Amino acid sequence: MKILYFTHSNEKKVGILGINKAVYALNDFSKLWKGDLPTTLNDAIPLLTDEVVQQIKEAISGDEIAPLCTLDDVQLHAPIEYPRRNIICLGKNYRDHCEEMEGKTSDMIDIPTFPIYFSKSAFPAIGAYDEIVVNASVTTQVDYEVELALVIGKEGRGISKSDAMSYIFGYMVANDVSARDVQMRHIQWLLGKSQDSFCPLGPWVTHRSEVANPQALRIYAEVNGERRQDGCTDQLIFNIPTIISDLSAGMTLYPGDIILTGTPSGVGMGFEPPKYLQDGDEVMCGIEGLGHLVNRVCIR
Amino acid sequence: MKILYFTHSNEKKVGILGINKAVYALNDFSKLWKGDLPTTLNDAIPLLTDEVVQQIKEAISGDEIAPLCTLDDVQLHAPIEYPRRNIICLGKNYRDHCEEMEGKTSDMIDIPTFPIYFSKSAFPAIGAYDEIVVNASVTTQVDYEVELALVIGKEGRGISKSDAMSYIFGYMVANDVSARDVQMRHIQWLLGKSQDSFCPLGPWVTHRSEVANPQALRIYAEVNGERRQDGCTDQLIFNIPTIISDLSAGMTLYPGDIILTGTPSGVGMGFEPPKYLQDGDEVMCGIEGLGHLVNRVCIR
Repeated sequence: MKILYFTHSNEKKVGILGINKAVYALNDFSKLWKGDLPTTLNDAIPLLTDEVVQQIKEAISGDEIAPLCTLDDVQLHAPIEYPRRNIICLGKNYRDHCEEMEGKTSDMIDIPTFPIYFSKSAFPAIGAYDEIVVNASVTTQVDYEVELALVIGKEGRGISKSDAMSYIFGYMVANDVSARDVQMRHIQWLLGKSQDSFCPLGPWVTHRSEVANPQALRIYAEVNGERRQDGCTDQLIFNIPTIISDLSAGMTLYPGDIILTGTPSGVGMGFEPPKYLQDGDEVMCGIEGLGHLVNRVCIR
Repeated sequence: MKILYFTHSNEKKVGILGINKAVYALNDFSKLWKGDLPTTLNDAIPLLTDEVVQQIKEAISGDEIAPLCTLDDVQLHAPIEYPRRNIICLGKNYRDHCEEMEGKTSDMIDIPTFPIYFSKSAFPAIGAYDEIVVNASVTTQVDYEVELALVIGKEGRGISKSDAMSYIFGYMVANDVSARDVQMRHIQWLLGKSQDSFCPLGPWVTHRSEVANPQALRIYAEVNGERRQDGCTDQLIFNIPTIISDLSAGMTLYPGDIILTGTPSGVGMGFEPPKYLQDGDEVMCGIEGLGHLVNRVCIR
């Protein structure tokens, strides 16, 4: 099941993507749960238990509910437009990306011994087709990073590796847009990663029931049609159970928390000379089975 | 004016602290603004314009509104218990603290040339008298850092240094509790700073109208009555207007955003041998005119 957040008829809604681009309004299935009519995916996640997800799928395949519209009729937003706290990101979590960044970051770490966690403010995160708007007086080194994003489905602390996957609600594509000059100048990476519009997410959340193995997905990025990144999520240095277990040992994870798991090689900074994003560039980020983000860069 | 967030009669409320420990419920003044009855300080900030703040002060001094109770009758919470995104923190922003940390952090930076920004998840932030609860299997090097916290009062991007102070709603005391082993092991500081309960805030927000010069305040911390930190906010390497202007150049600041401005020397890690927090320790953090936090450490 793919869960969308979109505007249709001037109203923001959570929806479900069916076959032939049919879009269903989530709240048209509200008889399947008690009480609330969620207006955001953050509010919907606790209601969308495995049982409810299964029932929604059956209701759609049984034609019990009519679609609201088609995908062409909606404006997609980031599935979680206002995350409840910053997005948790991993740095240097693909070996080939570590190699291309060698000597280029301030931390002198080549292959990390422990996961490198930093955060990214996305307030709001932008949608699959929104513009990445860059302030040219702040940065001249804007870079892309395609990443597999995890969406946490339930609260947990001290989660074991063996239980970790059950804490995931679903998966999406993220572009961890980065101002390299700002990132390096300030030593800690927050500001270079948190410029307004620097977090395209989506195009939708694919429920975990439809992702047989999230650690065997092709992951790639193109700039103006030129393939730059092309990896597989089986290359993660710290895998998904390790990340969830490690983070949650002393920091509770909550439904709606988003974790970006790192990027493979091929970022602009990795080239000699670097290939930073230019005004008008179109960045496409994709992950096998999870869809694509296509964001144009606008430098002002 | 001092704005509190507390529980009284099993209900969480935003309140105002008057003289003789009198506590007023903010919503008892609701005739002074239009519409909403805020239930959190995040919701209240946009309503508390300079004019409304002045009118509240006059209503209190004129005995127009009766107090709800006294400070002894309430349980204080962090004034903003669930910040809308992570708290923005500065590392190494007092020269004497830079000197005591020399060679002890992974970044090899002694005196920074540009501000070091990182983030701290406080979900929730804890109150002035709550326990700092430490998971002994995660960290054995828990440290304190008293900091001046800024609370942003209005939305802004590209804020000039000369306008910066007008974007501040008020000030409070923060303890940027840090797991040094986790902080250093993961290179980027997020996880070591974001363990559950590692962000005492408060005891209340002091409105900017009552802080003549936030950059001339004595700032200090004690552990079990032993004075460890004792500085002055005039020692900031990057001052408040610089921080607000620098952050907002490409990242919009929003009402309720919290910025911690760094800590003076005297943290546990600065001693030889280090003086990390132990089970049962009482940490007091204070800033002249803004009040105190007194948090007991509980290691489990």
